[in-house]
Amino acid sequence: MDFKKRAKELVSKMTLEEKMGQMKYNAPAIPRLGIPAYNWWNEALHGVARSGTATVFPQAIGMAASFNDQLMEEVATAISDEARAKYNEYKTFGDTQIYQGLTLWSPNINIFRDPRWGRGHETYGEDPYLTGRMGSAFVRGLQGYDPVYRKTDATLKHFAVHSGPEGLRHGFNAEVDQKDLYETYLSAFRYCIDHAHPAAVMGAYNRVNGEACCASPTLMEILRGEFGFDGYYVSDCGAIRDIDMFHKLAASPDESAAMAANAGCDLNCGDAYVYLQVAYEKGLVSEEVITRSVERLMEARLRLGMFDDGCPYDSITMDVVESPEHIALNREMARQSMVLLKNDGILPLKGGETIAVIGPNADSQSILLGNYNGTPSQYTTLLRGIQEASSGKVNYARGCHLYKDDEPGSCGEHPYREAVLAAKRSDVVILCMGLDPTMEGEQGDAFNGDGSGDKVDLELPACQKVLYEEIIKTGKPVIFVNVSGSCISLVRQDEECAAVLQCFYPGAEGGHALADILFGKASPSGRLPVTFYRSADDLPDFTDYSMEGRTYRFFKGSPLYPFGFGLSYTSFTENWLDDKTVEVTNTGSMDSWHTVLQIRDTPYPTLIGFTKVWVKAGETVTAVVKQN
Amino acid sequence: MDFKKRAKELVSKMTLEEKMGQMKYNAPAIPRLGIPAYNWWNEALHGVARSGTATVFPQAIGMAASFNDQLMEEVATAISDEARAKYNEYKTFGDTQIYQGLTLWSPNINIFRDPRWGRGHETYGEDPYLTGRMGSAFVRGLQGYDPVYRKTDATLKHFAVHSGPEGLRHGFNAEVDQKDLYETYLSAFRYCIDHAHPAAVMGAYNRVNGEACCASPTLMEILRGEFGFDGYYVSDCGAIRDIDMFHKLAASPDESAAMAANAGCDLNCGDAYVYLQVAYEKGLVSEEVITRSVERLMEARLRLGMFDDGCPYDSITMDVVESPEHIALNREMARQSMVLLKNDGILPLKGGETIAVIGPNADSQSILLGNYNGTPSQYTTLLRGIQEASSGKVNYARGCHLYKDDEPGSCGEHPYREAVLAAKRSDVVILCMGLDPTMEGEQGDAFNGDGSGDKVDLELPACQKVLYEEIIKTGKPVIFVNVSGSCISLVRQDEECAAVLQCFYPGAEGGHALADILFGKASPSGRLPVTFYRSADDLPDFTDYSMEGRTYRFFKGSPLYPFGFGLSYTSFTENWLDDKTVEVTNTGSMDSWHTVLQIRDTPYPTLIGFTKVWVKAGETVTAVVKQN
Repeated sequence: MDFKKRAKELVSKMTLEEKMGQMKYNAPAIPRLGIPAYNWWNEALHGVARSGTATVFPQAIGMAASFNDQLMEEVATAISDEARAKYNEYKTFGDTQIYQGLTLWSPNINIFRDPRWGRGHETYGEDPYLTGRMGSAFVRGLQGYDPVYRKTDATLKHFAVHSGPEGLRHGFNAEVDQKDLYETYLSAFRYCIDHAHPAAVMGAYNRVNGEACCASPTLMEILRGEFGFDGYYVSDCGAIRDIDMFHKLAASPDESAAMAANAGCDLNCGDAYVYLQVAYEKGLVSEEVITRSVERLMEARLRLGMFDDGCPYDSITMDVVESPEHIALNREMARQSMVLLKNDGILPLKGGETIAVIGPNADSQSILLGNYNGTPSQYTTLLRGIQEASSGKVNYARGCHLYKDDEPGSCGEHPYREAVLAAKRSDVVILCMGLDPTMEGEQGDAFNGDGSGDKVDLELPACQKVLYEEIIKTGKPVIFVNVSGSCISLVRQDEECAAVLQCFYPGAEGGHALADILFGKASPSGRLPVTFYRSADDLPDFTDYSMEGRTYRFFKGSPLYPFGFGLSYTSFTENWLDDKTVEVTNTGSMDSWHTVLQIRDTPYPTLIGFTKVWVKAGETVTAVVKQN
Repeated sequence: MDFKKRAKELVSKMTLEEKMGQMKYNAPAIPRLGIPAYNWWNEALHGVARSGTATVFPQAIGMAASFNDQLMEEVATAISDEARAKYNEYKTFGDTQIYQGLTLWSPNINIFRDPRWGRGHETYGEDPYLTGRMGSAFVRGLQGYDPVYRKTDATLKHFAVHSGPEGLRHGFNAEVDQKDLYETYLSAFRYCIDHAHPAAVMGAYNRVNGEACCASPTLMEILRGEFGFDGYYVSDCGAIRDIDMFHKLAASPDESAAMAANAGCDLNCGDAYVYLQVAYEKGLVSEEVITRSVERLMEARLRLGMFDDGCPYDSITMDVVESPEHIALNREMARQSMVLLKNDGILPLKGGETIAVIGPNADSQSILLGNYNGTPSQYTTLLRGIQEASSGKVNYARGCHLYKDDEPGSCGEHPYREAVLAAKRSDVVILCMGLDPTMEGEQGDAFNGDGSGDKVDLELPACQKVLYEEIIKTGKPVIFVNVSGSCISLVRQDEECAAVLQCFYPGAEGGHALADILFGKASPSGRLPVTFYRSADDLPDFTDYSMEGRTYRFFKGSPLYPFGFGLSYTSFTENWLDDKTVEVTNTGSMDSWHTVLQIRDTPYPTLIGFTKVWVKAGETVTAVVKQN
């Protein structure tokens, strides 16, 4: 079907006012044309989000750690199935509300430039190539494989050069040179456009070299001209009003609206485009500009099958939501997302040990879910996963609050001693610490006050440090499970603990997956998608967007754990047959996934290819490493 | 052993300053006498509280609904075992911190005079006799049965005439006549002193007829003189400072301290007794008064075995905490605490139905725990209990926030539609609504703003009412599970729902217990320990402490569900052989507990006896009803 032509025809029947209305994210119905109201805003970062029950996969940063883009594509397929099932039911109400549509404002493919950025865990880490591979797999899975219809729309965000500080985002000007712009900040956008043809791109809040991202002729020329993007462009929510209110590039909201529309921002999340009428009357924007945008938008809705009867995705039912297959897939992704950073041999546990599970993240639901999340109807906390899998006694003690010395509602409870006693009664301690999504997140969402969502440093909170001391003093072997979406300084843990495991925000199956790793039902195969620095003092100023001294590609210091690092329970040898072909031999005694990474100096270290292979103990597998 | 004599001897060796120190709840060590520091403050309302992991039994109001004081005594025995086990370990640190000692400031035997009182769910309801029976069973279980040593100390609170408003409690004057004072407010205190010899009594914040409870010659004469109480008296926390700060009965903190000490308040929770030294220097308090109090306190510590080696309770180990036996006991108590208020025959479910579980309380951990609670290392939400027990598909939808139309962090999610869709896909809806402990509780603890912990009316929150409408409109049969610690107006639910079940705050095993009831593994046997009114408009002003027009004894209107009401899955006949002896026949087809109540007009309706009997289907059991 020629959706472009149908869109043109449909839009040609609209009045100017009707067209302007369609450029708002909460587009009204046009009953005389058979167009129902539609709310474009939906989210699916790691599962259908904010729309009730859904399979909640590991947070994006954890999925990146799997280095398994095939698995990622399966996850995205599951997500788009669930989104479709929900849409198919929601549309029976005659319209859609927020978080009920098919236009998904995911993935977040910004580069995790600095570990202090609160939203970094929404991304695929610090490497442009890994981000491109994971992002394009995600886009393909969301958009589906039907030759005619798209299953859902993926939206690359935030275009561009967006990575904090959260507190300044509405008026921030990111200054970058052309090298960093192309080699770091835009690289994954280009990769995803080339490899996965995303339906949409979302503009960021900030300016880049002085131009507001949602009204930037420079960025739009790169996107549509150089990169060949031919989808629609949506503003981040409220970003167009930022142009006059915070960037001070326009004198009024109608000027902002006109600037964005003229630059090619087709859809407005926020309320700026109610001023398009005024802008039009002032002669700031032409009907041609508006028509062009609305044609793109209606083409998208047509391509999603919203106006047709024969769309094959209409038959997806709610049975897919949290189906046994999706739950199994979730557990597999969670297993592959965990990164073993140290192991003196204590892992995997033999079974039968008396185990103390200690720490504020042990029985937390929040850490499973991350942000931009749905609601699982069943979830397994880290504690519960260990309890279910352990054949020995499990002694649980929360030990302390996540970050408060005196928590509200605790009425002065001092929980350190209970944790010490639990450790003393046990053979081994599993210490579940770190952050949660209220401590690193988006401006307005996160509750860490000082940082507006960002972290002020890489340290564990003070009360956790006290608890850590107390537990180490017991002399019991400690398996440190670090839960966070970003680098935490683990210098002391690396010295003092028997094992260190990074598990990000592992999704609804997090507890099962952790237990699978701890008890050796699965060998860890995740690799760090970000550098684990020793201290934030080793980094340039957070507001500095130069890549100098940042990420494994440009950092000159000695990281605690480098990008790409991750241990296994077995051992592998790699025998390269040519530049792309490798024989991987599992020389240990446990079947396992193995992650093959190719990092070259070009002239700085650069990931140029990776693949993930399943190799049984004692066997050899030949793999062709994907490089483009 | 003569603990009184030993206490006298020990105290005789103390300086005046040392003695004054011992009257503070955080009593310092006296190393030269071998007395370690001791923090008297511990809580155990329905399980060891605020001291980490513990078996969390149903909230007190739910246990009262069981009308099973034998089971209550078993529960209290389990609690005191867990408290002892913890103390035995904590004391290895050489002292105790808050919530680590053996002196438990439970039970709360205030009369639940008005359903708006936020702390009402800590009590055993509105009836003095039920409260006395339940309270004395609880005290016996806490204090144990050793002829020499006490296992833990129980503390009756709050003496006296204390039941809100929370926001005024520090300066409130409760005015009561002698009839209400004796027949309602003091009755359970007398009963427990007569039947269970509690170690301690806690004085309330408020005044009674002008005298501050922690410094009231009138109340103390009743307590020690008339009722024969011979234990120690502890102030509520901060209550002694209230005497000068809010009651304005004293001009300075030293005057407050002297008033309390002279009245016989032996122990001070708060910081008022640091002023005892000043009071002594001013001649406001004598050394004899201080010596008398400290002798009582040291006698208590001696009787708890703190200074002896041979105390049999020293051998209780941490294995008892959340032991399989305690968990089974918890589930049984939770089953017996649930009250079936309406059933058109839909319950028990046949099994195999597709079930929608909807509502903000369905997957809530908070509602399991109530307040003054410990932390279970494993818990089963209502949703999870249903999921585990159901053989049919379970469709979960949260549906709305507990009380906020737009909740923080929801980012505008509108969850009603998902709930409607879940209902439509199902054969039956289990709607889990009501309150949680943040909406009814203590001043400072509860977050319902307007009420300082109290409820402003008996209504469900507005957003829940919207959700309720939407679900009813689907026409699906609804089983309404009301979660609350107090009466909620269920007029519409009684008309429109297929079944109504009151489950209070059901403890860590709440989900299992609910599923046992819903799927017919157990027949409901709980009875309401409070009247369920139709509206707060039917009640006198909340600040009015006259019993006129309150509770089943004096309410003249027509309640929706009366005190003592509760349905079963089977049917019973009672054949009274004499005033105390009854033949109970189970005329139905399901084994079940049956609650026998004797309510007499004396001249107003009064509960004078009750018992709980297990009767198999078709069988007859003869029971002697306990009446004193």
